Amino acid sequence: MTKTKSSNQMWGGRFASGPSAIMEEINASIDFDKKLYRQDIEGSLAHASMLEKQGIITSADSHEIKKGLKAILSEIESGGFIFSRKLEDIHMNVEARLRDLIGAAAGRLHTARSRNDQVALDFRLWVRDETQKTAEALKQLIQQLLLRAEQETETFMPGFTHLQTAQPVTFGHHLMAYVEMFGRDLSRMLDAAERMNESPLGAAALAGTGFPTDRFMTAQSLGFREPTRNSIDSVSDRDFALEFLSAAAICATHLSRLAEEIVIWSTTQFHFIKLPDSFSTGSSIMPQKKNPDAAELVRAKVGRINGALVALLTVMKGLPLAYSKDMQEDKEQVFDAAESLELSLAAMTGMIGDLDIDRESMKRAAGSGYSTATDLADWLVRELGLPFREAHHVTGRAVAMAEEKSCALSDLTLSDLQSIHHDIRGDVFNVLSVENSVKSRRSFGGTAPQEVQRQIDYWKSRLAKDDVTRNSL
Amino acid sequence: MTKTKSSNQMWGGRFASGPSAIMEEINASIDFDKKLYRQDIEGSLAHASMLEKQGIITSADSHEIKKGLKAILSEIESGGFIFSRKLEDIHMNVEARLRDLIGAAAGRLHTARSRNDQVALDFRLWVRDETQKTAEALKQLIQQLLLRAEQETETFMPGFTHLQTAQPVTFGHHLMAYVEMFGRDLSRMLDAAERMNESPLGAAALAGTGFPTDRFMTAQSLGFREPTRNSIDSVSDRDFALEFLSAAAICATHLSRLAEEIVIWSTTQFHFIKLPDSFSTGSSIMPQKKNPDAAELVRAKVGRINGALVALLTVMKGLPLAYSKDMQEDKEQVFDAAESLELSLAAMTGMIGDLDIDRESMKRAAGSGYSTATDLADWLVRELGLPFREAHHVTGRAVAMAEEKSCALSDLTLSDLQSIHHDIRGDVFNVLSVENSVKSRRSFGGTAPQEVQRQIDYWKSRLAKDDVTRNSL
Amino acid sequence: MTKTKSSNQMWGGRFASGPSAIMEEINASIDFDKKLYRQDIEGSLAHASMLEKQGIITSADSHEIKKGLKAILSEIESGGFIFSRKLEDIHMNVEARLRDLIGAAAGRLHTARSRNDQVALDFRLWVRDETQKTAEALKQLIQQLLLRAEQETETFMPGFTHLQTAQPVTFGHHLMAYVEMFGRDLSRMLDAAERMNESPLGAAALAGTGFPTDRFMTAQSLGFREPTRNSIDSVSDRDFALEFLSAAAICATHLSRLAEEIVIWSTTQFHFIKLPDSFSTGSSIMPQKKNPDAAELVRAKVGRINGALVALLTVMKGLPLAYSKDMQEDKEQVFDAAESLELSLAAMTGMIGDLDIDRESMKRAAGSGYSTATDLADWLVRELGLPFREAHHVTGRAVAMAEEKSCALSDLTLSDLQSIHHDIRGDVFNVLSVENSVKSRRSFGGTAPQEVQRQIDYWKSRLAKDDVTRNSL
Amino acid sequence: MTKTKSSNQMWGGRFASGPSAIMEEINASIDFDKKLYRQDIEGSLAHASMLEKQGIITSADSHEIKKGLKAILSEIESGGFIFSRKLEDIHMNVEARLRDLIGAAAGRLHTARSRNDQVALDFRLWVRDETQKTAEALKQLIQQLLLRAEQETETFMPGFTHLQTAQPVTFGHHLMAYVEMFGRDLSRMLDAAERMNESPLGAAALAGTGFPTDRFMTAQSLGFREPTRNSIDSVSDRDFALEFLSAAAICATHLSRLAEEIVIWSTTQFHFIKLPDSFSTGSSIMPQKKNPDAAELVRAKVGRINGALVALLTVMKGLPLAYSKDMQEDKEQVFDAAESLELSLAAMTGMIGDLDIDRESMKRAAGSGYSTATDLADWLVRELGLPFREAHHVTGRAVAMAEEKSCALSDLTLSDLQSIHHDIRGDVFNVLSVENSVKSRRSFGGTAPQEVQRQIDYWKSRLAKDDVTRNSL
Repeated sequence: MTKTKSSNQMWGGRFASGPSAIMEEINASIDFDKKLYRQDIEGSLAHASMLEKQGIITSADSHEIKKGLKAILSEIESGGFIFSRKLEDIHMNVEARLRDLIGAAAGRLHTARSRNDQVALDFRLWVRDETQKTAEALKQLIQQLLLRAEQETETFMPGFTHLQTAQPVTFGHHLMAYVEMFGRDLSRMLDAAERMNESPLGAAALAGTGFPTDRFMTAQSLGFREPTRNSIDSVSDRDFALEFLSAAAICATHLSRLAEEIVIWSTTQFHFIKLPDSFSTGSSIMPQKKNPDAAELVRAKVGRINGALVALLTVMKGLPLAYSKDMQEDKEQVFDAAESLELSLAAMTGMIGDLDIDRESMKRAAGSGYSTATDLADWLVRELGLPFREAHHVTGRAVAMAEEKSCALSDLTLSDLQSIHHDIRGDVFNVLSVENSVKSRRSFGGTAPQEVQRQIDYWKSRLAKDDVTRNSL
Repeated sequence: MTKTKSSNQMWGGRFASGPSAIMEEINASIDFDKKLYRQDIEGSLAHASMLEKQGIITSADSHEIKKGLKAILSEIESGGFIFSRKLEDIHMNVEARLRDLIGAAAGRLHTARSRNDQVALDFRLWVRDETQKTAEALKQLIQQLLLRAEQETETFMPGFTHLQTAQPVTFGHHLMAYVEMFGRDLSRMLDAAERMNESPLGAAALAGTGFPTDRFMTAQSLGFREPTRNSIDSVSDRDFALEFLSAAAICATHLSRLAEEIVIWSTTQFHFIKLPDSFSTGSSIMPQKKNPDAAELVRAKVGRINGALVALLTVMKGLPLAYSKDMQEDKEQVFDAAESLELSLAAMTGMIGDLDIDRESMKRAAGSGYSTATDLADWLVRELGLPFREAHHVTGRAVAMAEEKSCALSDLTLSDLQSIHHDIRGDVFNVLSVENSVKSRRSFGGTAPQEVQRQIDYWKSRLAKDDVTRNSL
Repeated sequence: MTKTKSSNQMWGGRFASGPSAIMEEINASIDFDKKLYRQDIEGSLAHASMLEKQGIITSADSHEIKKGLKAILSEIESGGFIFSRKLEDIHMNVEARLRDLIGAAAGRLHTARSRNDQVALDFRLWVRDETQKTAEALKQLIQQLLLRAEQETETFMPGFTHLQTAQPVTFGHHLMAYVEMFGRDLSRMLDAAERMNESPLGAAALAGTGFPTDRFMTAQSLGFREPTRNSIDSVSDRDFALEFLSAAAICATHLSRLAEEIVIWSTTQFHFIKLPDSFSTGSSIMPQKKNPDAAELVRAKVGRINGALVALLTVMKGLPLAYSKDMQEDKEQVFDAAESLELSLAAMTGMIGDLDIDRESMKRAAGSGYSTATDLADWLVRELGLPFREAHHVTGRAVAMAEEKSCALSDLTLSDLQSIHHDIRGDVFNVLSVENSVKSRRSFGGTAPQEVQRQIDYWKSRLAKDDVTRNSL
Repeated sequence: MTKTKSSNQMWGGRFASGPSAIMEEINASIDFDKKLYRQDIEGSLAHASMLEKQGIITSADSHEIKKGLKAILSEIESGGFIFSRKLEDIHMNVEARLRDLIGAAAGRLHTARSRNDQVALDFRLWVRDETQKTAEALKQLIQQLLLRAEQETETFMPGFTHLQTAQPVTFGHHLMAYVEMFGRDLSRMLDAAERMNESPLGAAALAGTGFPTDRFMTAQSLGFREPTRNSIDSVSDRDFALEFLSAAAICATHLSRLAEEIVIWSTTQFHFIKLPDSFSTGSSIMPQKKNPDAAELVRAKVGRINGALVALLTVMKGLPLAYSKDMQEDKEQVFDAAESLELSLAAMTGMIGDLDIDRESMKRAAGSGYSTATDLADWLVRELGLPFREAHHVTGRAVAMAEEKSCALSDLTLSDLQSIHHDIRGDVFNVLSVENSVKSRRSFGGTAPQEVQRQIDYWKSRLAKDDVTRNSL
């Protein structure tokens, strides 16, 4: 491949002047679409087999083409392939090399297809595979969370609302909240993979072709459920990429929340966790620092993923059918978002696995801030028959008294409590401890250890199914 | 309800100072969350029945509460209810009114729940219903497109790539591309509806409750598949709203593309369609104008829907669990996006129904721009056995000759063509007409009339199924 | 105004069918653009005066028109005006009413202008005024911050990086960081106001007019620097709105950071501040809670402002010149963002004013986490001549020793320190206290009290200038 | 630099375990921040000189350091420098190499600074320079537009609103609308450059330093107006990057509009322009195609620039002060957006220069669509004294009559017109031609050739000023 012709030149003599440097710079996609080399070659292999079976090309040509394509695959994977910007994109780079290797027969490969369906195919294969890889990474994170949650079903911590202590919960319960979120992310990824699993190959430029192709055959050999049903749509739309990006953005949002909690939990002030050395760094000027860099970076990655989604939504807005060159802007956004998400999932899985929890500190905090006030209110309702709103009011006065005395609710005396409501009895103190509060919340999905364990079991069994399909999630 | 207490005051004596005007302005959500009145009351009715069945409140109280709630529903629907900003939100407005109507028993309704699960429930019910409404509107648009497509399977128009004439297609085929897009939008909406169909009611503040509630009962009576499995997640996350917004953004992107095409098609220069009066306006200064306002507005609406998605993604980024007040910003975005999408779908359905197509003009354009050049190239491959790339080159020279002579490809003489490639035969002219070009593209999903009809039949049967579930779409 | 004709009907007999309900719903802007009534009437008054001066309309007509417009202004401000959706927008609502009031002369007002320049004018006036109002609100917030900062130049707190204790600073110094941010926001607003201060009135539909208008006269009477220089641009672009929105988004980002800090500072764990009752709320289920709702809502508002920016950027993408109806989507986004920003600025100003600081708690935290380790390293460089990197290493070992002994750096003994580096002398203890650390950082912009005071003085003098122009900020 | 230590290891012995592969992957920024090598070295040179002048390091050390830094600069620019991921970022890469070259003295360079102010400096220098480069590219585009506009002040084309023919304008006038837009973009870039032109160097980690530094000296030697005034703000904020991104997004929006017009103008149907070969490509399957790829890609680039803005806004949302690692996500977004904008500006400048205009086709279109209807209405106002609204109505009827007769307005007979309004006189035909319509619009900023020429002269003189400062633009 020592001398390369410009791909425009390859297409005929219509253009007098060569593309200028600016044009090459803005137009060539090879710098990023070479990532699709495997998809491109696999698509061509499937196409060649189909052309042969349908009698559109000879067996001899098909044999040559496939031999040549496999040689190119080897060249690329061994690093020996020279990509050329003059040839614009991965498709022309591969095809030009094929001609170098096998001569004129190379020209028969492009029969009954176009770059429009070729790029739609390559990119869709890539996104489909990435969607499944993301699903796999999500499963690993969920498994890691389940592992930690099961260890911590009796680890008490404050449940926060508005970052204020609200009610005691367990750390296991808290982690299981993220299992639910990432579980939905997983199911979104699987839905997306299923929806996009249709082959655009054979749509040709936009109108289909007059050659007697068999699109079901190529679809099947590339692992698609079926071919797409409209050739114009096949080359015009990129909603599969948008759907992947939006599922990724929601997942990254969930990750950002857990990351923020890790940052907060590892402050001197909270001291709920100690960061693993493996995911922290020091400071160039402050020798005592141990910084939650990985958590911060995971928190930040949602920015670029949201940005990628906005970028592609903006690109696609108002584009007339069918293919427009604007759509070349689809790939870098998806590549970057997918890589960022994969990395974030791996980092989070690692961090969750290595977190060093300070159970004493968590438990102490769980008891602060009058966290069992709701339990007092509920006792008043249950035992004394007060309407909830009145119980709420009585409890508010108890809290105010405790605040004034700078003590916990459970440190008030019975007569203190009776001065607020004379029917209060001594057994009220049973509900004012963190342990009893947590253990009492046995409603479905509640924080009581056996309830949390029930959900851990549910998820273990759900993930254990061999075939994690959309329906089972 | 003549004198209203501030809802803070209702919660106890803890706050000395009243909320300032700024605080009321920024904090109160009643101006927009009153839209949820029906969901709020339905949720409370289900909650009261459950409390009664579980023996948490008496039948007498339950009866009073339900009678009161139904009276409030009537008041609101008849316009007689006075909403109060001092009472902050729909929940406190309804509860305060309930106390006015039935007295202290009203205070028992809030047993074993919190505003956190209450608002999560109300909003989720609203989004679930809206998702289904959107699915319904999508089905109507698809049906309208199918109707038009079936009338236009033999209406020739230029297929464009880069907005340049590429190959002839039919208008029916073009419309069917949008059926595929909106079909995927529909299936995304149904997936979202299914995924969010879990009841958060009973999660209480965040930790569940010690009262012996039955969350399966309330879930069932509100039409949910089952209750959520983690009480912290139930009050913390809003990914169901994010998923609705992203499905809406993708759908609005599709709408913006069709709208752009309508704007372009209705220019003097294209003249493919005449706008229906019903969806056009005139000009205040230029009496001759007929403006495609509805199409332009549909095209623009994707802006605010993308904006709503970005808004909520931004809000949720990095929020620690469980509920934070930031999440109050979820509703207006979703309300606005849902309304914009519904309106856009309705307007597009109307426009498609009323479009007046200029078939002559479309057909003329279909034949311009050497649109059958690919057919010539394919003929050279098929009949003369040229490799595609060489055929492409020959065709390029034929186009250049036609350009020079200012004539169509089919106006070149046989000897003209033979001067480019001496083996070309007279039967080549069979493939140079628009009709023959279109009719030849019989590959699956191609533009040939019977292929388009096949896909119309497919969609008609798919939509006709009584139960349009995720799996069938 | 009892009978209103559809505005389309007003424009002539071209449209047979009336606009359908959908069209009215999507097309009418009166529901939101009535907010521009004052701008619309002021613009019309200026236009009428100009038409009269230039002899385009008679003095009598001008007199009638102006009397009528002022009457309409009164009607609207007193609530007596009935807005009609059939009349689409504020312009036609006012004009139709003017005809009711003064008859045919009303028809002369629209001479030499169009709705295109009219709406461009109205909206630009609104945005210009809002930009200035926002600048004013920013000044008030800055003044509030200066006030608090001046009280707290010797209030020690931990300076954080990565939310980990880094070095001691003062609370005054920390607040002054926000003064710099909001100061840049202020200067961005003033730049934007200056750049947009050109009058589009007189651009007419898009091409200018043949009437002998005086655009300088109307520009001057409406407070503009000059008229715009290109009539097509005047009605086509909305970059002034985009610039306002992006300045607003950056400002809201700054606000979100301060709000996040307030949320964190007011946790039980940090306890740096006590929230003012005026900007907090309680919980419906947890009587002890005091929630930082206002701070959370300020933090969240950046979501909708970013969303508004994305919305309008999306709308404007790829719009051909000149006016397209898409641009009607500009107003609601800007109105909502402006209102959200104003409210956020007011709430933040209030919160800063009312914050109750726990100086003891802050100071205690300032001394924790080996916060003076850098001071030790600097001492080693300064006094012993160690290269910084070596000093950093020595300090790291001192921190490790203190960690092991569970004590502060200043609690290590001299011989402890000398066991790490034998040249360390007793005067090293002078730099290990929080006070001395802070006081030593006297570099320009540093945290030493007199340096912070210097910057407070700078800002007081900068804000005190009567004419706060772009150049002075 | 054969053996590199991990930068964490360089900072001391605090971390037992090395960063894992994931951590290196997510944490290391050298892959992208090496782009800042020149800024990093220039900042260090300025810092070393200052340390020397202030007596903080010796002249000998300073001499060695500077010699070493210059050697490193040469190594990097000649391609001989080996960047190491283990050393995380450009700062540590340079410093480690400096130690290799000059030994222990290298360790003195980091005295009185931190990576926090170092990266803030490097990045700000880069953004400032890029902002100025963008301003320069904008000036070139404006100059190109002025050149074309001056050639086309009498080239008639239809002025569009809603993409419907509205009134005749000139192509020169249309191009000048973009001069105004890009002129505002230019002034936004210059404002941003001025606002960010403050040196953060010397802020150190966040609190300033106790060393007797001279921040005015380093500021001046790096071309800054002055040092920043608050050390915490200096390392915490990135609003200069956000401001650059928002100015870039607005500019890219303008470019997308012109690009869309080029796409539309070059359709077969419009045929206003012929695309230059240099900025078009052919098709792999359709030999006759000439595609406006460059215009489409310019139109699409706004997507990634909007995305970058959203990404960084999202990252910065709610970040507590001072530096957090999240902020490492600032650079790639800005690098990519800056490069995309530069490329888009260059491509647009090239396209405008090479556009081949079909004046006949434009003029023909200018006369179609009853484009002079407003002129008729204005004539009725001016000559017959009709109120504008009535004139509008009369004109509407004339248009309807012409439509019915399938002729132009100017082809109606006088008696046709008199049948609509009997006072119409023969001289009305003077205003119904495209030329007269255009020439009559002499209002300031209007489309009449001498008015357009006046604005061309204005811009030529404005750009010619040697010192294009914010104030002059």
